[in-house]
Amino acid sequence: MSADIIQDGDFAGWTRFERSGGNGEDGYIGLLGPYYYHSDETGQIKVAFKAEARHLNGGGTVHGGCLLSLADSSLFAFCVPYLEGGGAVTMQLDSKFLSPGHQGDILIASGRVVRAGGSVIFAEGQVTCEGKPLLAFSGIMKRTRKRGGDS
Amino acid sequence: MSADIIQDGDFAGWTRFERSGGNGEDGYIGLLGPYYYHSDETGQIKVAFKAEARHLNGGGTVHGGCLLSLADSSLFAFCVPYLEGGGAVTMQLDSKFLSPGHQGDILIASGRVVRAGGSVIFAEGQVTCEGKPLLAFSGIMKRTRKRGGDS
Amino acid sequence: MSADIIQDGDFAGWTRFERSGGNGEDGYIGLLGPYYYHSDETGQIKVAFKAEARHLNGGGTVHGGCLLSLADSSLFAFCVPYLEGGGAVTMQLDSKFLSPGHQGDILIASGRVVRAGGSVIFAEGQVTCEGKPLLAFSGIMKRTRKRGGDS
Amino acid sequence: MSADIIQDGDFAGWTRFERSGGNGEDGYIGLLGPYYYHSDETGQIKVAFKAEARHLNGGGTVHGGCLLSLADSSLFAFCVPYLEGGGAVTMQLDSKFLSPGHQGDILIASGRVVRAGGSVIFAEGQVTCEGKPLLAFSGIMKRTRKRGGDS
Repeated sequence: MSADIIQDGDFAGWTRFERSGGNGEDGYIGLLGPYYYHSDETGQIKVAFKAEARHLNGGGTVHGGCLLSLADSSLFAFCVPYLEGGGAVTMQLDSKFLSPGHQGDILIASGRVVRAGGSVIFAEGQVTCEGKPLLAFSGIMKRTRKRGGDS
Repeated sequence: MSADIIQDGDFAGWTRFERSGGNGEDGYIGLLGPYYYHSDETGQIKVAFKAEARHLNGGGTVHGGCLLSLADSSLFAFCVPYLEGGGAVTMQLDSKFLSPGHQGDILIASGRVVRAGGSVIFAEGQVTCEGKPLLAFSGIMKRTRKRGGDS
Repeated sequence: MSADIIQDGDFAGWTRFERSGGNGEDGYIGLLGPYYYHSDETGQIKVAFKAEARHLNGGGTVHGGCLLSLADSSLFAFCVPYLEGGGAVTMQLDSKFLSPGHQGDILIASGRVVRAGGSVIFAEGQVTCEGKPLLAFSGIMKRTRKRGGDS
Repeated sequence: MSADIIQDGDFAGWTRFERSGGNGEDGYIGLLGPYYYHSDETGQIKVAFKAEARHLNGGGTVHGGCLLSLADSSLFAFCVPYLEGGGAVTMQLDSKFLSPGHQGDILIASGRVVRAGGSVIFAEGQVTCEGKPLLAFSGIMKRTRKRGGDS
C-alpha cells in the first residue's frame, strides 16, 4: 500500500489503495477508483471510495457491481496481514444488499478475517455510508503462493 | 435494450446493453463496458463484454469485481421478461470463482430465472469464456415497482 | 418459547426451545433436539444443543446438516423480536464451515438481525463451541403473516 | 453405497444411502433417514427421502434444516466419483428456498459437480418434489485425504 498519507479532502488520513505488486492505478482499481485504504492501531482495515455519477446504475443509485467490486478488493485487503508474503485470490463471495448508495456517498468497506487456514482464509465485512450498512458480504480467499516467499 | 444489431467484430449479432430508462452509457455500464446483449428465439439471454487491460487486477487477471459486475447486470437482464413493466433491484448475490479471466477474453454471462414470485425473483447463471466456466452465480432480485405500470 | 428455566445440567439457565404455535416437540426440533434457548437482558438470543452420536456423519464429526439445522432454527429465533406477531420463513441461507464439531460438544448459535425490512429480514450468526467458531451463517427471512395479527 | 436395490415401495430401484466407511445407519443419516441413493447410466446421482411428521417445523412444512441436511449429504454424493479414494468435507454451502415441502412428499436432491480442482470441488443441485423445485443449493467441498489412498 502507498505510504503517502492524504492531507486533506474527503480522505484526509487515508492512503491511496494499490494492490501490492500490481497495476492498480492502470487496471481495474484505477478504472473504478481511486480507492483509499486505512488501517488503525488495532489492525482494523478499511477500503473506501466516493460514489460519482459514473458509478450509478440506470435507477440512479450505485450499481450493485460497484459495491461488489469494493467488497472483493476489501476481502483481499483484510487478508493481507495473514498472507505472510504469499498471495490470495477470491474463491467465493456472497452478499446481501441492505440499502442503496447514492452519488456523493463516501462508501467504506470494513471487516475482518474469521479464520485463516493453511489453504484458505474466511473473511467478512460490510460496506457502510455514514455508519448505515449498504452491503453485507463474506468470502473465501484461496492462498496462491507459498507463505514467506519472496514473490 | 437497444435494437441496433452490431454488424461486425467480436459482437456481431449482439446489441449494446443499456439498462432501460437509465443512464447506462454515462453510468456504471458505460464505465466498465460497453456491455453487449443477446437474446435468442428460445429466450436465452446473454450479456457480455471484452476484457481489456483496464479490467485487470494486480495479478494480471480480470478483477473479481469486474466479473461480479457482469453477473449483477445479467441477473437483472435475466429477470426483465418477468418484470411486466416493473423494476427490480438485487437483494442477494452469491458467487464462486472457478477460473481466472484474461485480457482479450470475451466474457459471456448466461443464465435463467429459477422462480419468479410475487415479490422476489430467483435467478442463476455463469460467466464463461469460450465455454469454460469462470464464475458461477445466483441471486435474488426484489421487485420494486408495480407490474403493468408505465414506469 | 417455554418459560420453564432449566435448573441444572449443561443447560442450566436456559429454556427448552419450541417454535411458537408449532409442533416443535413432535416435529423436526424434537427429532434433532432438544434445542435450548437463551435471551439475556441485552436481547442477545442463543439457541443450542448437545452433540450426540446420533448427530455424527460417517467421518465421526457433527454432520453439516446438523449444524445447518441449528443455524436455520436460530435465524428464526433472532427474528422473533422483529415479527410483531407475524411469521417468517427462510428465503435464503448461506454458510461457511470453519471447524468440525464433535460428540459431547455444546453447540451454541448466536447472532443478530442486520436489517429488518417490511417484507424481509436479514440476519447473521455463528455456531460456536466453547467460543470456537464452527459455522458462520447468514440468511434472509421472508415475513409470512401480517404484523400485529393474532395468528 | 449399499448394492442392495430396493424392490418395491416409494424407492423401488433405489439403494439405501450410507456414507462410505461411516456410521450412516447409526448416525445423522440414520436419525433423519433413511436416505436413498440412485445413480443412472449417465452418472446422474440422486439422494432422496420421504418427508414425515418428524421432519416438519412449527408451521407444518418440512423444516429448512431438513432440506439443508439432504442438500449437504447430496453435495458429498455428487463429489464421490471425483474423490479417487479420498474424502471431502463441506467448506461452504448456500441455499435458496423456493417452495415448501409437505408431509408425504418424496424429496429428491439431484445436481452435478461444476468444477473439480486439486484441493476443492464445486458442486450444485436442487431438491425437488415431483419435479417442482423446493431448494436450490451450491457448495464447495474440501478434499481431506490423499486421492488414491486406501482409506
